[in-house]
Amino acid sequence: MMKRILVILLATVSIATVALSQESKRDQPQGEMKMYGLIGKMTAVSGQRDALIAILGEGVSDMPGCLSYIVAKDSTDANAIWVTEVWDSQGSHKASLSLPSVQKAMARGKPLIAGFGERFVTEPVGGHGLAPAKGR
Amino acid sequence: MMKRILVILLATVSIATVALSQESKRDQPQGEMKMYGLIGKMTAVSGQRDALIAILGEGVSDMPGCLSYIVAKDSTDANAIWVTEVWDSQGSHKASLSLPSVQKAMARGKPLIAGFGERFVTEPVGGHGLAPAKGR
Repeated sequence: MMKRILVILLATVSIATVALSQESKRDQPQGEMKMYGLIGKMTAVSGQRDALIAILGEGVSDMPGCLSYIVAKDSTDANAIWVTEVWDSQGSHKASLSLPSVQKAMARGKPLIAGFGERFVTEPVGGHGLAPAKGR
Repeated sequence: MMKRILVILLATVSIATVALSQESKRDQPQGEMKMYGLIGKMTAVSGQRDALIAILGEGVSDMPGCLSYIVAKDSTDANAIWVTEVWDSQGSHKASLSLPSVQKAMARGKPLIAGFGERFVTEPVGGHGLAPAKGR
């Protein structure tokens, strides 16, 4: 009889633990883990903007924790590119820099970059168009 | 017999027309219609940033042609907000300014805005996290 009660008790505790753990996972983005955003401008070597854009756009949908990564042409400077990024955490952004696909793109893109312009770090808090994070 | 051939012929033409029309719709974003992007900074009246963010974030998922609209806190200025937007065309952005929900939000937000900072117009060309446009 005591053994049976113990089994029921343990099962109840397990279910409660799983439920709590799932709850805390759901809460993470709003709670302890802040989203991390970057707005950055770079200038391509003259005439190489399209080539650089193509490299920047490769494989960006597979980066774990990446909620948005948009590559845009500057509307006034024919060589300038804006990249706006949203990550589920600063850690996910940092980790992305070590991904083989990103390392490869950086190596291929580097010779096409003439320089960097404005760079703003943000904490995105909401909006429309944040993709579900992959690999988490 | 002739009538039957005519019916088949007409049906074939109709199917081909529908197929071509769908094809041209798919091609539009890359073809004649360029995406339109905005990166803008605004400063809230001291202590009103969260209130302004709440207003900016209201109803942004229902704007026709809006592919991304992200509201973020500046990481260094406690009163500054960044809004990054991607639209399927400049026309969709312009039209959004007349939406009743946007007009209402602008009226409510205006007293909380101390000023505007940097503003960059872009032509987004790709990436990850562009929501499907609604209402088109």
